[in-house]
Amino acid sequence: MGIKEELRQGVIPESIEETAAIEGVQPEVLARDIADGYTVLLKNEIRATARPVAVGRGLRTKINANIGTSNAYPSVEEEVNKCRIAIDSGADTVMDLSVGGDITSVRKAILEVAGVPVGTVPIYQAAAWAIETKGNIVDMSADDMFEAIEDQCADGVDFITVHCGVTRKAIESLRTQKRVTDVVSRGGAFLTAWMLHNDRENPLFSEFDRLLDIAETYDVTLSLGDGMRPGCGADAGDEAQMEELRTLSVLAEAAKERDVQVMIEGPGHVPLDQIEEQVKMQKKLCKGAPFYVLGPLVTDVAPGYDEITAAIGGALAAVHGADFLCYVTPREHLGLPSADDVKRGVIASRIAAHAADIVKGIPGAKEWDRRMSVARKALDWETQIEQAIDSDTARRMFDRRHLSDKDACTMCGEFCAMKIVSEHLGAEEDMRC
Amino acid sequence: MGIKEELRQGVIPESIEETAAIEGVQPEVLARDIADGYTVLLKNEIRATARPVAVGRGLRTKINANIGTSNAYPSVEEEVNKCRIAIDSGADTVMDLSVGGDITSVRKAILEVAGVPVGTVPIYQAAAWAIETKGNIVDMSADDMFEAIEDQCADGVDFITVHCGVTRKAIESLRTQKRVTDVVSRGGAFLTAWMLHNDRENPLFSEFDRLLDIAETYDVTLSLGDGMRPGCGADAGDEAQMEELRTLSVLAEAAKERDVQVMIEGPGHVPLDQIEEQVKMQKKLCKGAPFYVLGPLVTDVAPGYDEITAAIGGALAAVHGADFLCYVTPREHLGLPSADDVKRGVIASRIAAHAADIVKGIPGAKEWDRRMSVARKALDWETQIEQAIDSDTARRMFDRRHLSDKDACTMCGEFCAMKIVSEHLGAEEDMRC
Repeated sequence: MGIKEELRQGVIPESIEETAAIEGVQPEVLARDIADGYTVLLKNEIRATARPVAVGRGLRTKINANIGTSNAYPSVEEEVNKCRIAIDSGADTVMDLSVGGDITSVRKAILEVAGVPVGTVPIYQAAAWAIETKGNIVDMSADDMFEAIEDQCADGVDFITVHCGVTRKAIESLRTQKRVTDVVSRGGAFLTAWMLHNDRENPLFSEFDRLLDIAETYDVTLSLGDGMRPGCGADAGDEAQMEELRTLSVLAEAAKERDVQVMIEGPGHVPLDQIEEQVKMQKKLCKGAPFYVLGPLVTDVAPGYDEITAAIGGALAAVHGADFLCYVTPREHLGLPSADDVKRGVIASRIAAHAADIVKGIPGAKEWDRRMSVARKALDWETQIEQAIDSDTARRMFDRRHLSDKDACTMCGEFCAMKIVSEHLGAEEDMRC
Repeated sequence: MGIKEELRQGVIPESIEETAAIEGVQPEVLARDIADGYTVLLKNEIRATARPVAVGRGLRTKINANIGTSNAYPSVEEEVNKCRIAIDSGADTVMDLSVGGDITSVRKAILEVAGVPVGTVPIYQAAAWAIETKGNIVDMSADDMFEAIEDQCADGVDFITVHCGVTRKAIESLRTQKRVTDVVSRGGAFLTAWMLHNDRENPLFSEFDRLLDIAETYDVTLSLGDGMRPGCGADAGDEAQMEELRTLSVLAEAAKERDVQVMIEGPGHVPLDQIEEQVKMQKKLCKGAPFYVLGPLVTDVAPGYDEITAAIGGALAAVHGADFLCYVTPREHLGLPSADDVKRGVIASRIAAHAADIVKGIPGAKEWDRRMSVARKALDWETQIEQAIDSDTARRMFDRRHLSDKDACTMCGEFCAMKIVSEHLGAEEDMRC
């Protein structure tokens, strides 16, 4: 029995009690929001080791780290290491996007070590398998796609990205638009190629019920992928993207009726002034279903620093209602991320999410900032480092040269504004006592 | 004769013609906006070597890099090196905030090597001098302050930060507010301490005309400093900050009447949802005078990554009208920045400024993104690296392993979305021809 069905019968399972406690919300509220589809609980019953994570209304904005092999870097060990680093750095979930080497082994290894929900994009495996056995992605069968999905769900994956909105109509829009970058989603591209070559509709759309059957069986959350997401600012918000979003909103309703948990994926590359409207449109069309965004990247010109372009867009998206941010690493657009890139990507996304959570009024968000600020005013360096979003980096950068315990830092030294004003404002106040 | 007076007489000097050409705007429009105070031209006539930089309405958002010694790091050479790195990385201006060692030598060295406008905060030197000769900052005289200002203007400094809005009334507001971090501006702190100790009004406020005389003589732009800026999100937008802003708006008008160029400095630490209103309030109160913001930092918890917290806030501030972003480096709140920190800070600020310029419709901004995106679609790696905001970093991160010239990168390899879709969409289109 899936969690939504269970909730509908008035049972609040322990996993929800625990998750509500972590989030600082009432279990009844969380239970109702999950039942109503405003929130999803990422948890595959098979993996008892992983702590469930709730994504949605009134909850801390979550962040996901993508890892996974490519043909150039097929090492299982390296991806498992990145998985550990991502989680240690504070990723709420990881997605295994492996396309190189032994994909099944990578997934099983990640499911083994990750104490957080794990997502995948099963069509990658179907595509890799089609290349291996049939020579070309376009030669995979619809059954291959569904088998890959079922295999991964059976392995214990907690959520899967399925590009159900890449329809013939969306591809027709794509053609009309004359985009600069066409399709930049890998899953979207595989399906587009397959559909064009075979002159057929997307099976993940035309056989959506088959997908719901699998999701229901394993209580896996569907993340309706945005295969038509813009790959550059110039392509943002066009008809191909909107056509896909409309399709996803219809499918989301169908999933909800089957008590299948569902969230919606969003762009991508979006200029700053379109982010608010895009998030609000998704929320409205999809009746408040959780929104999972990649970036958005607010400019295309910063390869090497795309954790920053994504943090800018992600913070703004989250303020306006996005619930889940997929990180982007500095190496995006240049190659497969290193372990260091993974850490930077996670921290940048966490900064974006937290900046939004302050505004969203998420329990504990403002209080964290206040603890840091009080420590700053007190020149209490140990507490500042302890409260830092990445204490190791803060400690490494903090420079104790010439400092005794309650001294100002090496930037201002005896000219420290806070120290000077404390002395004088304090003295005045003492006098008035 | 100052530039505004010159313009008022109908003369458009060569410096404006050149600057307009760089900005892609009409010289007449730029001239009018400078005359009307919507834009400032940072340029001290004494330094013929530096290229003037315009900051304000309809122009590319500019970014400033702070450098300068502290007592812990008094090396002139290191700061000159940072100055070079900042400019090479794309800083439009630098500010020398030296407070340690031989302050005069640092300034002269920076004025010598910088091919861009240089700003200073003269009260730092007055304060250092007071400590050296009188034992305490609070023992400096008003004359000491004005002498430091005049000395620096005579050296050729292009713009100076003067904390004229730190008035007795603002300090009274500060006291009432019970802020978490009181004053975090160094200049603001020096003046606050001085005023409290001496029980006197701020000479930069009470003798503002004296300041205007100096600015007029050297045609130096006044950057009206925000000594009361919030030092944490919790203090943002309080009465002390607003009281100071109102004072600055009145002083800005007085400056404009004397044909002295003026811009307004702003916060600081500001939660995401207050940025738009703060920028719009400044623009309204100060009748469109250029707005120069530090950050704003959208959370307090990320020491070690404050170039990112500032990029998020800076991008949003610039979208809503801020004209000039002061960078923040990763080492902010932890110590004096290294040369590497300076570079990271400059690039992060440039990303924020450019993301805003796309939305502001600044000439060339969208076109840059499009060039990058076209190169991406073509898998043209050389052009991508060339168009990157920091080509060196992009080149270093780009991984050629297993790649031939027009191949996809190591992230996707043969699974490259753009490659696959190009082949299939292209094939379809060929068939239809």
